Amino acid sequence: MTNWKEIDQKAKQWVKEAGEIIRNSFDSSLSIQYKSNPNDLVTNMDKEIEQYLIGKIQQSYPDHRILGEEGYGDEVTSLEGVVWIIDPIDGTMNFVHQQRNFAISVGIYGDGIGYIGLIYDVVHNELYHAFKGEGAFMNDLPLPKLDKVNIEEAVIGISPIWVTENKRIDHNLISPIVQKVRGTRSYGSAALECAYVASGRLDAYLTMRLAPWDFAAGLVLISEVGGTASTLDGNKLNLVSKNTFFVGEKSLHNHLLTEYLKK
Amino acid sequence: MTNWKEIDQKAKQWVKEAGEIIRNSFDSSLSIQYKSNPNDLVTNMDKEIEQYLIGKIQQSYPDHRILGEEGYGDEVTSLEGVVWIIDPIDGTMNFVHQQRNFAISVGIYGDGIGYIGLIYDVVHNELYHAFKGEGAFMNDLPLPKLDKVNIEEAVIGISPIWVTENKRIDHNLISPIVQKVRGTRSYGSAALECAYVASGRLDAYLTMRLAPWDFAAGLVLISEVGGTASTLDGNKLNLVSKNTFFVGEKSLHNHLLTEYLKK
Repeated sequence: MTNWKEIDQKAKQWVKEAGEIIRNSFDSSLSIQYKSNPNDLVTNMDKEIEQYLIGKIQQSYPDHRILGEEGYGDEVTSLEGVVWIIDPIDGTMNFVHQQRNFAISVGIYGDGIGYIGLIYDVVHNELYHAFKGEGAFMNDLPLPKLDKVNIEEAVIGISPIWVTENKRIDHNLISPIVQKVRGTRSYGSAALECAYVASGRLDAYLTMRLAPWDFAAGLVLISEVGGTASTLDGNKLNLVSKNTFFVGEKSLHNHLLTEYLKK
Repeated sequence: MTNWKEIDQKAKQWVKEAGEIIRNSFDSSLSIQYKSNPNDLVTNMDKEIEQYLIGKIQQSYPDHRILGEEGYGDEVTSLEGVVWIIDPIDGTMNFVHQQRNFAISVGIYGDGIGYIGLIYDVVHNELYHAFKGEGAFMNDLPLPKLDKVNIEEAVIGISPIWVTENKRIDHNLISPIVQKVRGTRSYGSAALECAYVASGRLDAYLTMRLAPWDFAAGLVLISEVGGTASTLDGNKLNLVSKNTFFVGEKSLHNHLLTEYLKK
C-alpha cells in the first residue's frame, strides 16, 4: 500500500530544502549577473536541483519512477505505479533575468491519478500544495473552491505572443478573448500561473505548448479547488507528452472553449 | 531651503505605515472576498490610504502641494514648489483580484525635478526607493546601473491588449516587437513595472495611457539607474496630464523607438 501521507511530508520537506539551495545561490547585491550567458547558469542550477530531488526520492523510494525536465530521471512513457513529475526550475527566463517569478514544481501520480501537487515560489517562500481529496493550500492557508466567473469579470493569463501571428495558433481565435476579459496578465512561469488559477488570482490560463513537468503539479492543485484542465481544443491532457494547455474556473473554461476556441 | 533628506525619511515612514494599513485589511483565509463588487473596496481603501498620506504631508509640510489619484489633494496644473504625486494603490485590479502585485507609488518633485521616488510592493514588503543623485535601492540593496541590452535578449513589459486591434495604437506597430524580443511579461501595475525596469527584471515597459501618479515615482527610480523615459513617440512626459508611456534601458529604448515605434 502506498503511504501517500508519508510521501507528501517528505516531498514538502525536499522541495523546501531545494528552495533553500536556490536562495543561497543568489548574491546579495541584486545584480542579474548571468544575463549575458543565461544558459550556463540555468543548466547548472536546474541540474543541481533535479539531481538533489532525484537523490532524495531514490533513497527513500527506490521503486518510484521519476520524469524530470533535465532528463536525470527515468524514461517514462506510461504512468503505472508511482511517478514523480518534476520541473526543478519552472520559469527559467525569470530565474535568470529576475531572480524571481520562478517555481519548483513537483506532481506525484499513482497509476495516472494525481495525488500530490507542490509548486514552490522560492523567492516569496510560498508553497502551493494540494493533496487529493483534502484540498489545496498556500503555505497553511486553505484555498477556497473557485467561484463562477463571467468573461467580463475575468482576469486571464496569456502571453502577448499568442495574439500576434505565430506558428502554433490562429491569433484571430485568441484576440477576441483578450478584448473581452477584464484583464490579462503574463508571468512567464506555467507552474506559477497554475498556482494563480488555483488561488483565484487568475481565472484562466492558456498557452500553446507545455511539457508534463510544467503542469503536473498544477493539475492537482486546480482539481482540488474545482477548476478544469484540458488541451486548447477541450481534450484530456497527456501526462507523458507535450500539449496545448488550458485551465480555469469551470464555467469560464467551458464558455471560452465553446464560444471562442472551438469556433 | 527644502530639506530633501528629511522629506525622504518621512515619506518612507509614511509609505510603510500605509502599507501596514493595507496588509491589516486582508483577512487570513486568502479568499478574494470583494470580487463581485470590486469598485466598493477599491474606492474605500484607495481613499483611506490617500487621505492618510495627505494628512501626514499637510501636517509636516503645509506649503507642499499634492497631486493624488483620488482627488483629495490639490488642483495641480504646474509643478512649482514641492509637489507630491501619489497613487495610493497602483494596480487596482490586482489589489481586488489578487491581493498582491499592487503598490503604493509616491514621487516627490521640486520645481518639476524628481527628487524622491518610492514604490512599495506592500505584500512582498519590498520598497523600491530612489533619491536624486544617490541611486536607487530595493529595501537596502543598491540597484546597479542598467546594462546595455539587445532586443533579442530583452524581456519587456507589455499588455496583450496592445497587440490586438484597439483604439489607442495600430497594433501592427507593436506586434513585431513582441515577436522579436526574448520574452514579454504583463503584471498589471505600471508602478511595479517601472520598479521592475529599474531593477533590471524588465528591460523596457510600454503602455498607451498613464496618469502622472502612475509613473511619477518610477521616473525617479529609472533615472537613477541610467534608464530612459518618454512618450511612445519619443517626446518628454508631461507630469500634469495623461501620456503614452515608454521606459527602458537606454540603448534598447532608442532602438525600439527608431526601428519600430517611429516607423
